Amino acid sequence: MSADDKPRGSATIHDVAREAGVSIGTVSKALNGTGSLSDDTRKRVMETVRALHFRPNTLARSLHTGLSGSVGVISNDSFGRFTMPIMEGLEGVLSGSGIGVFMVNATDDAERERAHLDQLLAKQIDGLIVTARRADRRPSVDLSGLGVPVIYVFSQGDAPGALTLLPDDQGGARLATDHLIQRGRRRIAHVTGPEDFEAVRLRAAGWREGVTAAGLEPGPLMHGSWTEAWGRAAVAQLLNGPRPDAIVCGNDLIARGCADALREAGIACPTDIALTGFDNWTVMAEACRPALTSVDMNLIQLGAHAGHKMTEMIKGEDASGTLRLPCTLVVRDST
Amino acid sequence: MSADDKPRGSATIHDVAREAGVSIGTVSKALNGTGSLSDDTRKRVMETVRALHFRPNTLARSLHTGLSGSVGVISNDSFGRFTMPIMEGLEGVLSGSGIGVFMVNATDDAERERAHLDQLLAKQIDGLIVTARRADRRPSVDLSGLGVPVIYVFSQGDAPGALTLLPDDQGGARLATDHLIQRGRRRIAHVTGPEDFEAVRLRAAGWREGVTAAGLEPGPLMHGSWTEAWGRAAVAQLLNGPRPDAIVCGNDLIARGCADALREAGIACPTDIALTGFDNWTVMAEACRPALTSVDMNLIQLGAHAGHKMTEMIKGEDASGTLRLPCTLVVRDST
Repeated sequence: MSADDKPRGSATIHDVAREAGVSIGTVSKALNGTGSLSDDTRKRVMETVRALHFRPNTLARSLHTGLSGSVGVISNDSFGRFTMPIMEGLEGVLSGSGIGVFMVNATDDAERERAHLDQLLAKQIDGLIVTARRADRRPSVDLSGLGVPVIYVFSQGDAPGALTLLPDDQGGARLATDHLIQRGRRRIAHVTGPEDFEAVRLRAAGWREGVTAAGLEPGPLMHGSWTEAWGRAAVAQLLNGPRPDAIVCGNDLIARGCADALREAGIACPTDIALTGFDNWTVMAEACRPALTSVDMNLIQLGAHAGHKMTEMIKGEDASGTLRLPCTLVVRDST
Repeated sequence: MSADDKPRGSATIHDVAREAGVSIGTVSKALNGTGSLSDDTRKRVMETVRALHFRPNTLARSLHTGLSGSVGVISNDSFGRFTMPIMEGLEGVLSGSGIGVFMVNATDDAERERAHLDQLLAKQIDGLIVTARRADRRPSVDLSGLGVPVIYVFSQGDAPGALTLLPDDQGGARLATDHLIQRGRRRIAHVTGPEDFEAVRLRAAGWREGVTAAGLEPGPLMHGSWTEAWGRAAVAQLLNGPRPDAIVCGNDLIARGCADALREAGIACPTDIALTGFDNWTVMAEACRPALTSVDMNLIQLGAHAGHKMTEMIKGEDASGTLRLPCTLVVRDST
């Protein structure tokens, strides 16, 4: 039912925000006479408050207790490898503010996703975090006009006024490339994933940028699947041409395949050919022989940053646009 | 504050259940005059209802709408590899019933864990799921007297009246062993993890049971860490003694180390020595050369089962004791 079908006095701050087309923070500012709002906005909010018979005295003294104290996370990663560190960082920050995290698993089915979202909204969540299996994808549901702050983390979308947080893939690949150049490598190849991933294009740009900034010729750029098998196949191809002295790999699985193929071909890593991975998937990087130098996307920190921004946005701060957070390089034996 | 410090009429069904030391379902039965309760229990509940000035008319017609429609999950796995599939199954079932899942990350710090739990309870959760990094460990907080149903999944605890759901480790190892025997193997070794894991002892029991049931001598039983490096070291030791024709490994990482060491020693797998893993960690099992036959603990189904039991327990069904759900064997090239 819509907000004005509800019995008098049962409208919530969420209903007011949705009806007036503003954030909860804006409603709170209008009610409390705080913050800088245009006269038009303040007037529109107060008219909505009256139309819905919203009782501002049910809003507790602190803004926080006037909210449900919960945030929803919707992910199409099936609770997967990328969502979990993001959740760890996010939940750590939000629980510190007494905010609970509702977690729902989206699918690529827009209708089911809409149902999931409606369930979250029915729980009067104060904000929504959207995350995904791929940083350039998002749950397919329309998130405009929810009336709560939206943050995309490791995913992208078009909800108006939403904030997007992504790892700096290009900078990460640049880190790995610069590190190899500092270790004296001059013929640096790039073996990576499918070209239709934005992350693949950005990482290739970072590799090319690093190589050309050092006045070197970029070695071959090879696209394939995100698998160890592709890493092994790529090394077989590379050994048929002019031999590189380093390979920047698009992820840790590819790098591990490269390491196995090099060892089995009797080529010493890192002496003859050095290797870097991407993801810093610890169990994989440490089991690699030699242990793999890898770019860490700092997903726990990305999640924590989302938690901090979400608490600020719930309090009424506006934040939008795209923010790319720096990666770091974890150096191990392969370089 | 305790329930009876609250203003008149603000007590919830949760307060009544906690105060009377019964489940929410029992309070509901007493209020609605349904179900089979002893006269004593019914009397105690109704006395508590009066003492707390609980207004049963705030309980909506259906039991469900009288509840918060949310369940808490507390895990000390840092949103890790074992919790993910459990969450996937659990959330799938609960969201189908309109129940949201609050997820909090516990630590091994009892005080922080207590704070986490208090936050969950403050959100009036209708039930609590406890899960862990190790099936034989549990969050260290005391869960008695919460007044909501508790289910331990892939973890164990002592909350009275709680239900515990675990994978059948012993049966899983038996499956792998029987499969190898059916393929004609006669000298079956077991290379596994640290002996202080209950899962290690149970899997060893399943292996021994299978071997002796076939009238064979158990091959060596070797304990080490849960790593590929231990798998490689174990093969080096095994090749110094009477050679087995199969190895049942305690997890997929150990099996993968075994596979690498066999290949590098020029021993054909599975022709000379067959291998089985445990966990069916797909990315690991499929990248193994040869692809690894592995025992699947069916954690998604374990989570889904917990979801179904939780909805029943919220409705008032009593369920307690320990239930071990069957594993299945996923056959690939290594056998």
